Amino acid sequence: MILGNDPILLTPGPLTTSLATKQAMLRDWGSWDAGFNAITGTIRRDLLEVIRGAGTHECVPLQGSGTFSVEAAIANVVPRDGKVLVPQNGAYCQRILKICRYLGRAHVALDIPEDRHPTGAMIDEALRADPSVTHVAQVHCETGTGILNPLPEIAEACARHGKGLVVDAMSSFGAIGIDVSKYPVDAVIAASGKCIEGVPGMGFVLVRREVLEKCQGNSHSLAMDLHDQWTYMQKTTQWRFTPPTHVVAAFRAALDQFLAEGGQPARGARYAANRDALIDGMAALGLRTFLPRTVQAPVIVTFHAPGDPNYSFKPFYEKVKQRGYILYPGKLTRVETFRVGCIGAIDANEMRNVVSAVAATLKDMGVSKMEPLKAAA
Amino acid sequence: MILGNDPILLTPGPLTTSLATKQAMLRDWGSWDAGFNAITGTIRRDLLEVIRGAGTHECVPLQGSGTFSVEAAIANVVPRDGKVLVPQNGAYCQRILKICRYLGRAHVALDIPEDRHPTGAMIDEALRADPSVTHVAQVHCETGTGILNPLPEIAEACARHGKGLVVDAMSSFGAIGIDVSKYPVDAVIAASGKCIEGVPGMGFVLVRREVLEKCQGNSHSLAMDLHDQWTYMQKTTQWRFTPPTHVVAAFRAALDQFLAEGGQPARGARYAANRDALIDGMAALGLRTFLPRTVQAPVIVTFHAPGDPNYSFKPFYEKVKQRGYILYPGKLTRVETFRVGCIGAIDANEMRNVVSAVAATLKDMGVSKMEPLKAAA
Repeated sequence: MILGNDPILLTPGPLTTSLATKQAMLRDWGSWDAGFNAITGTIRRDLLEVIRGAGTHECVPLQGSGTFSVEAAIANVVPRDGKVLVPQNGAYCQRILKICRYLGRAHVALDIPEDRHPTGAMIDEALRADPSVTHVAQVHCETGTGILNPLPEIAEACARHGKGLVVDAMSSFGAIGIDVSKYPVDAVIAASGKCIEGVPGMGFVLVRREVLEKCQGNSHSLAMDLHDQWTYMQKTTQWRFTPPTHVVAAFRAALDQFLAEGGQPARGARYAANRDALIDGMAALGLRTFLPRTVQAPVIVTFHAPGDPNYSFKPFYEKVKQRGYILYPGKLTRVETFRVGCIGAIDANEMRNVVSAVAATLKDMGVSKMEPLKAAA
Repeated sequence: MILGNDPILLTPGPLTTSLATKQAMLRDWGSWDAGFNAITGTIRRDLLEVIRGAGTHECVPLQGSGTFSVEAAIANVVPRDGKVLVPQNGAYCQRILKICRYLGRAHVALDIPEDRHPTGAMIDEALRADPSVTHVAQVHCETGTGILNPLPEIAEACARHGKGLVVDAMSSFGAIGIDVSKYPVDAVIAASGKCIEGVPGMGFVLVRREVLEKCQGNSHSLAMDLHDQWTYMQKTTQWRFTPPTHVVAAFRAALDQFLAEGGQPARGARYAANRDALIDGMAALGLRTFLPRTVQAPVIVTFHAPGDPNYSFKPFYEKVKQRGYILYPGKLTRVETFRVGCIGAIDANEMRNVVSAVAATLKDMGVSKMEPLKAAA
């Protein structure tokens, strides 16, 4: 790698963005200026189209990381006396439970092994068992492992029971189809620095309008009050508090490229090809995925670490980085893993190249036994 | 103005940044990567030096706009059974009161006219009158008008009564001296896109370590839990949730330029020269400032709008923008005003040029009576 050249980020956001997206930040925008506020307006409009929510939903952008928007969505959409069911199969589901504890919202977890997903029948059963639940909070693609949770059947189960549904679509939005015109979803949450391929710094919540209209007074926080942000923005076109203007401008550029590529179907197809090239290449090296192929989203892939005593993540990470690729650590506690993202302004060629970099690195490290160690008790 | 060329932002953040600062965003950083986390580390170190807080204080950065950090500071530093005294002379003081209402923190306002500032004696009296107050929350430079509130004497009054002090230094930090080694301050809050001249997207709170250590459990919010952000960052060098990586890299570049310029004394002197050139030039046109010169911070200047019936802010703003300068609306309810920022990567020459642009615009609009209208009842 040439000094000063960027390594490719194979991480689930921040990710590698295009030069055009980064260059959109070479300009200072006034937050009160009509030109800037027009950008905010078209972003809000275009994000609704991604989930076919124009007409039924409203887009409320929010400063901060995606977690800020997840917290804001729970705090605003779930009334203070509501109760949240969280089907739980990974780290980001656990984060929603943590948010509920901070907010003092009643909640119940439906624990599912990390390599399996909830089903409509499981949600049905959980809602029958606890009729005091008012909302389900579902992570769409659980970035902790990379598993895809089946949103349509979960949404239909919620609808059958008349329960609200809040979807953390952080790492799926724009890559995996979401269609709120086909199944009801109260709120879909994502952020700028994920599959739309912007830079990190803002999130957004797409909320059903009739739900949003009833949110007033729910928020625990001024900064995260989505109802207040929305009503102010409707009235003035402006953000309530200083927006991350450069991040917003880059997000507009990223959305332009997303639309030019062909929107979600094309973006999802590119990522799926990335995932397949990655898994096939790693399999040829003897490296196994944590998840079965059937539930593996085209976003991030968890691999079992090689069981060879010469393997250790830190030097492995550093040596692969020297070859131009930044990997991501695993997020499982019971088994040693590492993760490789498939998202960002990259194609299957990059995935084949990272497989070569991994192969060369493992050889350098003297790692030959690829079979993983047994899970810790 | 040439199409595509940026107008100069005479707004109190976002502001005009240098090209070097913007170019630092032409790179994608991994949030787990040691190179990126080293940037976060040096930013935290350098910010403490600005207020001479190394050794006594800790810097906790936070995603989002400055208001997110103000809310986080109040929520973390003031215990749930604490009570906040807010000396109130403008819009950002009122925002702190609003935050207290959201948080359910007991609070009391000490109302002061917008063109006057609190004194140590006034704080003394208020604290004597209500011994249940535990903390004072003070805006240093009130951006609503541009007034400078006298921090040292307020801090000394708090110390005399053994009360905590939280300072919203959003628009003063880096421009106006703050020295926590001379007078005690529990928390100083500012943001990336102000007088350090970075781009907006992150704030930071500089908290006295022994105060921060006692904050656990105070926060109403996971995302805004400064104690949790701090302990995680101490342990891992990483942010808890995705940082705005490009904003952070730009902030590092801006800090480098701040230090190269000579730090706060040099930055403050440049801004003071900007302010003086602006006020002198506008005075020559017949335009009067809202504040007396003695209390006018070198950050943003509020001017009375001309009383001429041909004047109206919107067309005035648009025509000055056509000439390359973006102004800021007034934030006073009783009198019509507009504001002009003195901060950002600009010098006194820009201020003379904006005066020329204002002169030409008023002439175009047929505005000749500069004397303001009388204040509304």
